[in-house]
Amino acid sequence: MRIAELSRRTGVPIPTIKYYTREGLVPPGERTGPNQARYDETHVRRLKLARALVEVGGLSIASAREVLTLMSGPGLSTLETLGKAQYALTPRKERTEDETWRRAAAEVDAIVSERGWQVRESNPARGTLIDALATLRRLGHDDFFEILGPYAEAAERLAADEVKLLMRRGDLEGVLEGLVVWTALGETVLASLRLLAEEAEATRVFGAF
Amino acid sequence: MRIAELSRRTGVPIPTIKYYTREGLVPPGERTGPNQARYDETHVRRLKLARALVEVGGLSIASAREVLTLMSGPGLSTLETLGKAQYALTPRKERTEDETWRRAAAEVDAIVSERGWQVRESNPARGTLIDALATLRRLGHDDFFEILGPYAEAAERLAADEVKLLMRRGDLEGVLEGLVVWTALGETVLASLRLLAEEAEATRVFGAF
Repeated sequence: MRIAELSRRTGVPIPTIKYYTREGLVPPGERTGPNQARYDETHVRRLKLARALVEVGGLSIASAREVLTLMSGPGLSTLETLGKAQYALTPRKERTEDETWRRAAAEVDAIVSERGWQVRESNPARGTLIDALATLRRLGHDDFFEILGPYAEAAERLAADEVKLLMRRGDLEGVLEGLVVWTALGETVLASLRLLAEEAEATRVFGAF
Repeated sequence: MRIAELSRRTGVPIPTIKYYTREGLVPPGERTGPNQARYDETHVRRLKLARALVEVGGLSIASAREVLTLMSGPGLSTLETLGKAQYALTPRKERTEDETWRRAAAEVDAIVSERGWQVRESNPARGTLIDALATLRRLGHDDFFEILGPYAEAAERLAADEVKLLMRRGDLEGVLEGLVVWTALGETVLASLRLLAEEAEATRVFGAF
């Protein structure tokens, strides 16, 4: 198909398709003339995924490229690829590892070991979690730490439910794509539900919001 | 105190302090000379909050300004202000409300009414949630919808735990600041814990990750 049909099929505007192609999120079409290219079903699929990760999952162009490249690479069938794709979903940051940070790091390691989670120390989510907890301490919100247990428990239960549900798909490709897409979009879903639940809870407790 | 001490006390570099001041996230210091200004404890507090929202909570400068202005405004004691601050935490987007989107919207409304949540239709988290669900449908991940119930249940329980814990603070100012800060940073905490739990669960089920 031509680019106009690709745009119509996916709902992605032509300038965005060109931008994603230039940035390596979507492979180029097959050249059929000086200003023409032909696209197929793999482009439709890839373009939808790219847009989902960037516009809904909130990934940067660089992270989305990394995730998509890993998902379509020859190693898709290995689980290590999946781990790399998941790691690419978390932005890495420069940080100051002061006393408060190290204390928060010890608390995170305690949670992980209490729950018996097997997690690599290189998982970037560990650093993001420590950053957030250290910030809460620096702001004097020490009471937040009492909620950490319930948070970890909820995260564990949801992760278990997700993996169980995905395993029903049967095909490995489907399971792997699901893990990446659900990780990215599920975060948005969970965060939005939490905001709605917070409004509902504040309304219930305070009578108005 | 002078800007150098403000920087030392908060750990925020001087150029960042100047940037936040120019962008209205932090009020300017009291002028004491052509190139000097004096800062006090309110600046220390406000600067820490600004950095927490932007660097850890991931808010845009515009959203952080809106939240901080609402938090420090004369109406802080009214709960409506809190609602506005919470709404400012969610980025608003242009969207296409096609058939898939409307179907997802109906599903979100069903969840909200089943759980008995009192939520304004103008809460921007509602739109973000519908966007994410519509995207999952467009990508063919219909099975994700089976996990929505557990997600909503977890969100409700965590929101209830948070509000209960915050109410122990006693002072209204503390409760309100807590609601805003916990909403912003708690999202990062929950998302990171979920990523760690997913790695742990995948490792448990697949044997390696």
